[in-house]
Amino acid sequence: MTEDALKYEVLASDGAARRGRLHTAHGTAETPAFMTVGTAGTVKGLLPENVADTGAEIVLGNTYHLMLRPTAERIAELGGLHKFMNWNKPILTDSGGYQVMSLSELRKITEEGVAFRSHLDGSRHNLTPERAMDIQCLLDSNITMVLDECTPYPAEPDVAADSMRRSMRWAQRCKDAFIKRPGYGLFGIVQGSVYPDLRQESAEALQEIGFDGYAVGGLAVGEGQEVMFEVLDATMPHLTRERPRYLMGVGKPSDIVGAVQRGIDMFDCVLPTRSGRTGQGFTRRGPINIRNARHQADPRPIDPDCGCKTCSSYSRAYVHHLVKANEMLGPILLTIHNLHYYQELMAGLRDAIEKGELDAFVSAFHRQQAAGDLPPL
Amino acid sequence: MTEDALKYEVLASDGAARRGRLHTAHGTAETPAFMTVGTAGTVKGLLPENVADTGAEIVLGNTYHLMLRPTAERIAELGGLHKFMNWNKPILTDSGGYQVMSLSELRKITEEGVAFRSHLDGSRHNLTPERAMDIQCLLDSNITMVLDECTPYPAEPDVAADSMRRSMRWAQRCKDAFIKRPGYGLFGIVQGSVYPDLRQESAEALQEIGFDGYAVGGLAVGEGQEVMFEVLDATMPHLTRERPRYLMGVGKPSDIVGAVQRGIDMFDCVLPTRSGRTGQGFTRRGPINIRNARHQADPRPIDPDCGCKTCSSYSRAYVHHLVKANEMLGPILLTIHNLHYYQELMAGLRDAIEKGELDAFVSAFHRQQAAGDLPPL
Repeated sequence: MTEDALKYEVLASDGAARRGRLHTAHGTAETPAFMTVGTAGTVKGLLPENVADTGAEIVLGNTYHLMLRPTAERIAELGGLHKFMNWNKPILTDSGGYQVMSLSELRKITEEGVAFRSHLDGSRHNLTPERAMDIQCLLDSNITMVLDECTPYPAEPDVAADSMRRSMRWAQRCKDAFIKRPGYGLFGIVQGSVYPDLRQESAEALQEIGFDGYAVGGLAVGEGQEVMFEVLDATMPHLTRERPRYLMGVGKPSDIVGAVQRGIDMFDCVLPTRSGRTGQGFTRRGPINIRNARHQADPRPIDPDCGCKTCSSYSRAYVHHLVKANEMLGPILLTIHNLHYYQELMAGLRDAIEKGELDAFVSAFHRQQAAGDLPPL
Repeated sequence: MTEDALKYEVLASDGAARRGRLHTAHGTAETPAFMTVGTAGTVKGLLPENVADTGAEIVLGNTYHLMLRPTAERIAELGGLHKFMNWNKPILTDSGGYQVMSLSELRKITEEGVAFRSHLDGSRHNLTPERAMDIQCLLDSNITMVLDECTPYPAEPDVAADSMRRSMRWAQRCKDAFIKRPGYGLFGIVQGSVYPDLRQESAEALQEIGFDGYAVGGLAVGEGQEVMFEVLDATMPHLTRERPRYLMGVGKPSDIVGAVQRGIDMFDCVLPTRSGRTGQGFTRRGPINIRNARHQADPRPIDPDCGCKTCSSYSRAYVHHLVKANEMLGPILLTIHNLHYYQELMAGLRDAIEKGELDAFVSAFHRQQAAGDLPPL
């Protein structure tokens, strides 16, 4: 066990949901936490102070992107990822496995690891469990993720079992290669597709090895919210309550709310940032597309109940104008708002758990989301 | 005369150069001033607070872009351009004439005005002196520019004279149509190509009409710095020292320095913003292209003598990485730096004029610019 490497406190609970605090060498993060995605060493379009202003306490970097450009060695020479990107709060990095499968070319998985060609320049690379640990150490990531295979969906049981078991062998190699440091930790990743017995087997195998936290991987890959929640229902009882639990790549606001109810503590997703770049704004009354002509003369903010920088000073009409004119500030203002919306949602969930009022919070959330956008003026 | 509409003080002078202060309904601007270009209601990629942080006190909006999208009427309904773009300091707008000639399709100039088709959707529009005043009033611009024709370069003397004289007739119509308001002003524009007699005739014609400030137009259109300075030398003696003088669309740092020496008080140029979006950074030792591989591992800031947000917290290696990866933050950080560089240059010029040390400042400026980039580490 590496219990001392990354301290995690459970401060309160409400049903299966927990309110906690993660302590890292770069400060704390309150949980349930939404981790803002900063793929290539930047949260797209935002200065780090704008990211912090949204309430973000931890960002996620992508090993696949960073290992190819500018390379982990370059970032280490320049003092690590925190200094490189001017973000002095906690950073979690993924292992690169997911993006190798989704982005790279000519990839080949063996027991040793993954061989692939870069999508940028076709150059050859190998990613092994040991190399994934090395890279994330060079990046100086506070939370390192084990290298795993995100089992494709759908997968037959025997394929899912073989994939999961190889990931478990890789998890052991990651644990062996990970260099313990105070305030830094290593998370294992539960796989097993949609099969409860495989998920249980994976959770138990990881806890046998012992990690600082446990992620649930291989979800949000097309299975839908209902199946995702079923898998969580089958998995969570097999994960210790002593350590943080992280649902990777999730998700929509309602996904997050349902997963928190099931005991998940950490999330990451490109949705608020990526959809902000295509004109989508999340609101307490559901998502809107700011490109829609009905916003072109609307003096109201994207979400009248929001206190973010965007909603405090800019109209829907202005953001509509910027997006239609392909001005960078359109995506920037929407990204700021969307990230703030997500962080406000997490703060609301944390507060509700502390007060033992999670059920009421969730009911109000769904009622608001179903209300639909503001009526025309 | 509209002397009371827009107060202008000359606080100090050094040779032909002046140190002044412009008072508008939205606050003051110290001169010599560089006006940051915010074409379509946004300084590309920057939040208004980032623009103000660079030291900017006045921004320029483009009538041509705004009249087509989102339209001046829309902006007026939403409370004017200051509120629309969340910029509460002074705004100058051009008249649209320059962009009609450079961007629109099927344009036709008559005595009445310019008829053209939008480059966005082919829709037909007319821009007359009266309409240019109407639009800029709807935008609530603090400094309105007369509609003129930016005479193409090169132009034969008779063509330049005809063009200039029509612009002077338009200037009178603008003056007649402009609605006086305290803290708002109207500037005339001197034309006449490279011909001293035409420049003198134009300057005298405008002052006969009487404006709150006088711009020099039709320069920085390919004539080169030497010719531009010759035209200024021939024009400035004919412009009153009581009113601000504005050199439109200029320019490179050395253009600005030379024009300030010749008595210019105001500038605008897309160079720091546009070149920031293509990887160019201005430094005290001349411009650098951050895409160059020699910056890829350089931990030093773009300009070690710069105190801007970019140079305080980010390495050349990081900005290089962002630009190579097509990340929005690359142009953003370069734009912040470049605008800060320009504002520092203006602050240095103002300080030198106050102290009567402009010649020494200019010598040091040229010596530094000629030094070349930092040696490799």
